[in-house]
Amino acid sequence: MIRANDKNIKTWIEVSENSDFSIQNIPFGIAKVNNEVFVATRIGDTVVNLYTVARLGHFDVAKDVFASCRLNDFMLLGKQATRDVRDKISDIFNANNAEAKNNVELQEALLNVNDVEMLMPVEVGDYTDFYSSEQHAFNVGCLFRDPDNALMPNWKHIPVGYHGRASSIIPSGTSFHRPKGQKKPPTEEMPVFGQSNLLDFELETAFFTYEGKPLGDSISTEEADDYIFGMTLLNDWSARDIQGWEYVPLGPFLGKSFASHLSCWVVTLDALEPFRTAGPVQNPKVLPYLEYAGDKHVDINLEVLIQPEGGEETSVCKSNYKYMYWNMNQQLAHHSVNGCNIKAGDCMGSGTISGPKEGEFGSMLEISWKGTKTVPMKDGTERKFINDNDTVIMRGFAEKDGVRIGFGEVAAKVLPAK
Amino acid sequence: MIRANDKNIKTWIEVSENSDFSIQNIPFGIAKVNNEVFVATRIGDTVVNLYTVARLGHFDVAKDVFASCRLNDFMLLGKQATRDVRDKISDIFNANNAEAKNNVELQEALLNVNDVEMLMPVEVGDYTDFYSSEQHAFNVGCLFRDPDNALMPNWKHIPVGYHGRASSIIPSGTSFHRPKGQKKPPTEEMPVFGQSNLLDFELETAFFTYEGKPLGDSISTEEADDYIFGMTLLNDWSARDIQGWEYVPLGPFLGKSFASHLSCWVVTLDALEPFRTAGPVQNPKVLPYLEYAGDKHVDINLEVLIQPEGGEETSVCKSNYKYMYWNMNQQLAHHSVNGCNIKAGDCMGSGTISGPKEGEFGSMLEISWKGTKTVPMKDGTERKFINDNDTVIMRGFAEKDGVRIGFGEVAAKVLPAK
Repeated sequence: MIRANDKNIKTWIEVSENSDFSIQNIPFGIAKVNNEVFVATRIGDTVVNLYTVARLGHFDVAKDVFASCRLNDFMLLGKQATRDVRDKISDIFNANNAEAKNNVELQEALLNVNDVEMLMPVEVGDYTDFYSSEQHAFNVGCLFRDPDNALMPNWKHIPVGYHGRASSIIPSGTSFHRPKGQKKPPTEEMPVFGQSNLLDFELETAFFTYEGKPLGDSISTEEADDYIFGMTLLNDWSARDIQGWEYVPLGPFLGKSFASHLSCWVVTLDALEPFRTAGPVQNPKVLPYLEYAGDKHVDINLEVLIQPEGGEETSVCKSNYKYMYWNMNQQLAHHSVNGCNIKAGDCMGSGTISGPKEGEFGSMLEISWKGTKTVPMKDGTERKFINDNDTVIMRGFAEKDGVRIGFGEVAAKVLPAK
Repeated sequence: MIRANDKNIKTWIEVSENSDFSIQNIPFGIAKVNNEVFVATRIGDTVVNLYTVARLGHFDVAKDVFASCRLNDFMLLGKQATRDVRDKISDIFNANNAEAKNNVELQEALLNVNDVEMLMPVEVGDYTDFYSSEQHAFNVGCLFRDPDNALMPNWKHIPVGYHGRASSIIPSGTSFHRPKGQKKPPTEEMPVFGQSNLLDFELETAFFTYEGKPLGDSISTEEADDYIFGMTLLNDWSARDIQGWEYVPLGPFLGKSFASHLSCWVVTLDALEPFRTAGPVQNPKVLPYLEYAGDKHVDINLEVLIQPEGGEETSVCKSNYKYMYWNMNQQLAHHSVNGCNIKAGDCMGSGTISGPKEGEFGSMLEISWKGTKTVPMKDGTERKFINDNDTVIMRGFAEKDGVRIGFGEVAAKVLPAK
């Protein structure tokens, strides 16, 4: 049992009933106030400057780790040290800790969330994106091939993945321009250049790794938990028209690399332990290096909303991370089985997470069934893909036994092409 | 005219006739002597500690840049500043510079190449690998499809590329283990796990970028030269059996990510300017954003040799970088046309560089024509792919008007699977 996970813990900080940031959460992020940048956590609507807390001598690790502008140095401390810090934070803000509550110096660490700018949490070294939701892979296979051959022959044997672009991963709240590129509309004989007209979101989660083993060594499914720091939400934007023309035979490239958005609070794998759940039966049986023991999936409610300029949010997808066919342990074991070295701060995307039912599909490609259906917005407009000035918002949380652990949101507005 | 490129310059440092490291080269790398790590250049067999030179006040940029363990800080200075440093180095070691030659303090910067360990030159943020040799793409198409449909429909419209793994890029001289992974031999009904039996090299060059523009902006073919720092040789190792089973539909992943080797000296694009040459006529005509003016290809002789354990080197390929269909300017313009941000230290591979004739193919896949031909070694053994304990060596140089600018070599030994 991880100490900070105890569902009976209360905090002396005010937390509203439906807050994503219960005292059992204690996520980590990078915050900025008045040009000071520091590692932070959040409890309710209070952002805690952990550099201030560290300078007061509360942690057993070097305080400079918390003065960093990215979480990588913190992650380099490894699982036990970061777990100890989370436990210590839980102790400090425990409702029974009157000494801390009355400590004037500690009050200086407490900031209102509205006074804080959240920055990119992690310096991503390598970004890998998996393709691990069966329903999504099946839907895409139906749309581009046929239902009888929807899944590729390798799909149930390998957590299929590919390398993505790290430099264009940006934090929630950063607007971006609709990408331009080369595409070949079915009506044209030759490719053309222009703005993407089929801009799409992909509902994903991402996990971030601790420093792995040296090049040449592998991480087993059993060891994988010790190498996973935490998770965020990920919107893996996709320009379907650019992607469709470029991706054979070497995979997605410019159809993805214009922007990918992360939510700003990294929820630790420790915090998500109480929400573990069983995955699907894997048939055919996987090779031994992909076998795993115990519940390694996680029950996380996910939602996607589209907010037209000046309008209300319309929910277009409710899905769940538990729908994954391949779990993080299998993904990491597969990724390193060839000896590939994993670094602190690597980002691994789940792939689009689609549930089995309509209303649970994690991309407009699937929701509009390749543009053959329209999706009504509350303001009376319709969507097949994403329009200029739309904001796409993804939210996610786990909830059980009266404890809610949420991610906040990843939201980003699409500006017109430059 | 770039000052350091003058073919008439002689140096007071001894340089043997066929040295890759003429006074017109002045490449940059990271060297280590007695636990001191510094930015270095090489003239003949003399490695020059540029941090020592900087501390003597010879450069106009902050000396700490040369105390770095990677070239990224140097690259962040931009084209003009790095060009000025190269010109200044040329002046210092010019045969006419008696003052420098007789400067006792400067002597301390001079090291014998055998006393120096060369390290990874660049911290690679993102690694992109292109697929820009027509003969290679054609050969692969013939081997896996048929000669009439060898090139994909997009190939002559797009410099096809994909994201590769940055963490496993390592410097020349670093041995590595044959990778293991999942593969599906044609004789088996189900996939199996085991060591790769079809380990291959890919003869490539790489270029490294200066800091690009912000996310959302593009670099034109005309601007591209200003964003390219220099080049190395690249051996993009490939496990053909792992790659064959995994790569549809999202591209190469574990078949590549176990190791990629770079040569240690980054030869500047400035140094290569005299060796520019015309590229092939591109038909069909490319879209305007891929058009370019002037000679943007480079005439670089390339060679691959296999050295069995304890045996002699056997040359198995002689190719040339001028055989590329797409040049670096087109690759960089394409990469950024969707707004993807390029960072200082990004690495972009050419893709396997195969020439039009037999003997010019840049991978064993092509040389052995998918294992249907054997390649004789000088020690009497034969190869179809790469054996355990083989060392694969790649060399490259440009030569014209009595000036030779070389890359040295990228060499790596394959150890048995762990």
